[in-house]
Amino acid sequence: MHRYRSHTCAALRKSDVGSTVRLSGWVHRVRDHGGILFIDIRDHYGLTQIVASPDSPAFELAETVRGEWVIRVDGEVKARTDDTVNPNMPTGEIEVFAREIEVLSAAKELPLPVFGELDYPEDIRLKYRFLDLRRDTLHKNIMSRTRIIAAMRRRMTEIGFTEFSTPILTASSPEGARDFLVPSRIHPGKFYALPQAPQQYKQLIMMSGFDRYFQIAPCFRDEDPRADRLPGEFYQLDLEMSFVEQNDVLSTMEPVLRGVFEEFADGKPVTQEFPRITYDDAMRRFGSDKPDLRNPIEMQAVTEHFAGSGFKVFANMIANDPKVEVWAIPAKTGGSRAFCDRMNSWAQGEGQPGLGYIFWRKEGENLEGAGPLAKNIGPERTEAIRTQLGLDEGDAVFFVAGDPKKFVSFAGAARTRAGEELNLVDRDQFKLCWIVDFPFFEWLEDEKKIDFAHNPFSMPQGGMDALENQDPLTIKAFQYDMVCNGFEIASGGIRNHLPETMVKAFEAVGHSRETVEEDFGALYRAFQYGAPPHGGMAAGIDRIVMLLVGARNLREITMFPMNQQAHDLLMNAPSDVSQAQLRDLHIRLNPVKKED
Amino acid sequence: MHRYRSHTCAALRKSDVGSTVRLSGWVHRVRDHGGILFIDIRDHYGLTQIVASPDSPAFELAETVRGEWVIRVDGEVKARTDDTVNPNMPTGEIEVFAREIEVLSAAKELPLPVFGELDYPEDIRLKYRFLDLRRDTLHKNIMSRTRIIAAMRRRMTEIGFTEFSTPILTASSPEGARDFLVPSRIHPGKFYALPQAPQQYKQLIMMSGFDRYFQIAPCFRDEDPRADRLPGEFYQLDLEMSFVEQNDVLSTMEPVLRGVFEEFADGKPVTQEFPRITYDDAMRRFGSDKPDLRNPIEMQAVTEHFAGSGFKVFANMIANDPKVEVWAIPAKTGGSRAFCDRMNSWAQGEGQPGLGYIFWRKEGENLEGAGPLAKNIGPERTEAIRTQLGLDEGDAVFFVAGDPKKFVSFAGAARTRAGEELNLVDRDQFKLCWIVDFPFFEWLEDEKKIDFAHNPFSMPQGGMDALENQDPLTIKAFQYDMVCNGFEIASGGIRNHLPETMVKAFEAVGHSRETVEEDFGALYRAFQYGAPPHGGMAAGIDRIVMLLVGARNLREITMFPMNQQAHDLLMNAPSDVSQAQLRDLHIRLNPVKKED
Repeated sequence: MHRYRSHTCAALRKSDVGSTVRLSGWVHRVRDHGGILFIDIRDHYGLTQIVASPDSPAFELAETVRGEWVIRVDGEVKARTDDTVNPNMPTGEIEVFAREIEVLSAAKELPLPVFGELDYPEDIRLKYRFLDLRRDTLHKNIMSRTRIIAAMRRRMTEIGFTEFSTPILTASSPEGARDFLVPSRIHPGKFYALPQAPQQYKQLIMMSGFDRYFQIAPCFRDEDPRADRLPGEFYQLDLEMSFVEQNDVLSTMEPVLRGVFEEFADGKPVTQEFPRITYDDAMRRFGSDKPDLRNPIEMQAVTEHFAGSGFKVFANMIANDPKVEVWAIPAKTGGSRAFCDRMNSWAQGEGQPGLGYIFWRKEGENLEGAGPLAKNIGPERTEAIRTQLGLDEGDAVFFVAGDPKKFVSFAGAARTRAGEELNLVDRDQFKLCWIVDFPFFEWLEDEKKIDFAHNPFSMPQGGMDALENQDPLTIKAFQYDMVCNGFEIASGGIRNHLPETMVKAFEAVGHSRETVEEDFGALYRAFQYGAPPHGGMAAGIDRIVMLLVGARNLREITMFPMNQQAHDLLMNAPSDVSQAQLRDLHIRLNPVKKED
Repeated sequence: MHRYRSHTCAALRKSDVGSTVRLSGWVHRVRDHGGILFIDIRDHYGLTQIVASPDSPAFELAETVRGEWVIRVDGEVKARTDDTVNPNMPTGEIEVFAREIEVLSAAKELPLPVFGELDYPEDIRLKYRFLDLRRDTLHKNIMSRTRIIAAMRRRMTEIGFTEFSTPILTASSPEGARDFLVPSRIHPGKFYALPQAPQQYKQLIMMSGFDRYFQIAPCFRDEDPRADRLPGEFYQLDLEMSFVEQNDVLSTMEPVLRGVFEEFADGKPVTQEFPRITYDDAMRRFGSDKPDLRNPIEMQAVTEHFAGSGFKVFANMIANDPKVEVWAIPAKTGGSRAFCDRMNSWAQGEGQPGLGYIFWRKEGENLEGAGPLAKNIGPERTEAIRTQLGLDEGDAVFFVAGDPKKFVSFAGAARTRAGEELNLVDRDQFKLCWIVDFPFFEWLEDEKKIDFAHNPFSMPQGGMDALENQDPLTIKAFQYDMVCNGFEIASGGIRNHLPETMVKAFEAVGHSRETVEEDFGALYRAFQYGAPPHGGMAAGIDRIVMLLVGARNLREITMFPMNQQAHDLLMNAPSDVSQAQLRDLHIRLNPVKKED
């Protein structure tokens, strides 16, 4: 018989009754029922109930074992009586009568229980992560994570993508977030950087004549703590394709991600055909470029109904500034003064002057628009608004007015608020969509200049001609996001593979050709020697796993996370290093902030 | 029709004749045959021959295209005439008559040819890696590499291993090679380190109750340039299993690696059952713990035949020191004075006094041992040696004498030399074996103390009892290597999961319990709370790929390697960083070596 086990702790069934078996695992729980000991023994695969009765030679030792000891048990499989069968456990029809027990490893008193799922302080959980990871929910989350990644890999491979690893010691990038730096020992005063993303490498892979690349790519950003991103490293499903247009990337990746969601959605519905919504449209309808489409509320412009109306606040704004619009946030079932007032108070709490509204109720036989706004604009305009929005008795609508650029994010928040408060959002589903046609440039009000709105490597729609002849703020990029339930889960673009167009785009935001050559030397150089049209995207693996397992915290889906202060409490990193190590790396500590 | 292609450049066959197609790719080669242009167009998948005749509307543009331009070609598939069919190309039965050509991207004059496989200076190849990677051999090697890794992953998954990524920003490790360090911005004066291997993490994964882990793991060592290791990062197939003994790891991993070798051996024979050779035995038989078993020569001790013999040099050594042995290196077909003298000269070049030998020839009907040694020891002892070694007419044997510890590596080199010189080595095969029972400790002559011979985390054979009661230098470890054709391709061990045994082992080499607690805190802590017996190994992916594709240089199987000076010529890393970046990281440059 094997030294440690003939079966895993999930393997035994009624058909094994009568066999002599050997199991090894952790003591999950010990119960004493009238002098008979019941020990649940646990391994990665499952649980089996061990019975040690006083007449067993193993009884004396069995009395000493405690939670999380690792033991080996030899014994005989017996059928449970009908009243003790546990239908919720795969091994619930049997139990193993212990004949011999060996303690493979004892355990000190636990700082953190493994049995049960009590909430526990995070610093204890991270320091004793090896115990925390034995707990059922986290253990399962980590297994889901690895299965989700394996499914991504399998699906990408099936459709002809090849996985390549790109270097982790690379060059510091002048764009984007802050780099982690690695001092070079061999080249004094020089530094490697950890990649924020393999963006340049994946484009270089296309220049190298490989056709469809993907990678489960570790990415590194030295960012300040954020609730939705772990400090340090995170993972992307990164991919790139040659000889493609935007539609090719979208129609290639939509089935991959839909498939992954369906595989792990646990029966929840997943969008079958992802709507493609332009950025402008998303902002107008949902007040966000990452709309939660589970929320059925769609906003509409109702400016005309207020222009020249008796509601002078809006009417005057509209008359004085052609940029001003009034947007309506229809709220089905929100038609009570109590709810409308609650929304109004919430808006004031958000720093707004208030939130105008109309709600509809029956007055006798008549449907009546109620509230001060309805009074001001009169029944005809009120009815026109109601008809446009398709509202009815018991419904409400809220209004925001002004320059849409300035109020849009508040409008989006109000839409979310109304949807949630009214329980219009069916949470048990995955609603996915594409957001396309992002603006290529954006206006930086503080610096009074334009800059790249997103990825500087994207191709501007209209190419060189647009850059030369179009108002830059109207140029769209071949740039797209995939959004699920209000979260951006992937982002990509068709790249600008034409070096002169690239230079022109950088010049538009104030960079010279020399800067491009210097800062993006490898790419710029590669574009000179036969560059295929190419594009791709990167999907955030951590976020996708969180959505699929329903976790609210990245530490619930990461095996060995740092805490929010970028401290690894398990391994004690970062830590002090020796003077000799620093000397080897040609650096010294600089504890005084003001120096240099 | 798709914007760029209806088919890849490898897709068209005779059955496509008559179709109108669209191809995109790189101009591989242009030939002008009597005014008709033949353009080989290339993509990741293959080559297709394009024909542009003067009456084609595409002819004028076709005349302008040059090597490595990226073009789109529309045209008609035609069958080649019988005498122009190229059976070596999958598309060799057809050609495409161009009707329209679009230049997608022109190319400047190339610093490096893509057509053909001329040797080129390495700095050019690395700076223009995107061109180098388009060349056939390197492109194929990189594809083989990714397929080999995919095969490892598939085989590991099939037998129940789960892939987990372990952190890349972790703690500096006091053992092993030099770490790459990453200064922390949030914790002034503290540093992360990149992992030299996920050794502690994989053991912690076992402590966390996961049963069978593997990872295609990036590893980082800041080592001085070595011919057989790229600076910076390398990859391991890393794995660990719980509730196992040594034999479980060996018998689990042998089929995985054998399978990978068979899958990519291109028909070359692969060892079916890997011999398990003890370290001591390997040293005695092959003079190496990474023996090349393609070399049939096995050494044997022949001390007794020289003890008290007429060859006084050996006889006196043997008489004066019980440690002295004489080893024989039998060399079939080496039985000529010329060869024996060549070996003797080679040995002198290696700093040896010479290399004694006997060779056998026919004198009339008699088999005669020739050479000075045979004369000195006489025919009876000569014949006894011949019989022991199974040698015959035309064979030779070489002798080394002394303390085996001191001569063993020279003896191994002589074995290799003889095998190669005599063409006894059949190179076209993969001979694999296990080396087991490595010594747990070794004697450091310089420091006059014992140290761990290999992995300090391995379990000593005999456990605590051996540590307490046995001569440390006789203790073996549950530690093993896998060797192929003279290269160590994997290494592993059964771990010491018992904290007291771990402390005892560290104490034996002069470390205190406190050092263990401090330096290996996470593991030591984890061992206190129920540690399963566990073990595993790590296989060197780069080396395995090199063996399988027959590459002689790691840069031939690595997509974006640094040069030997740890410089990435493509991305220009490492590079200067700004004072602001250094300030953020609380470090300053320390250009003067002597400081601190």
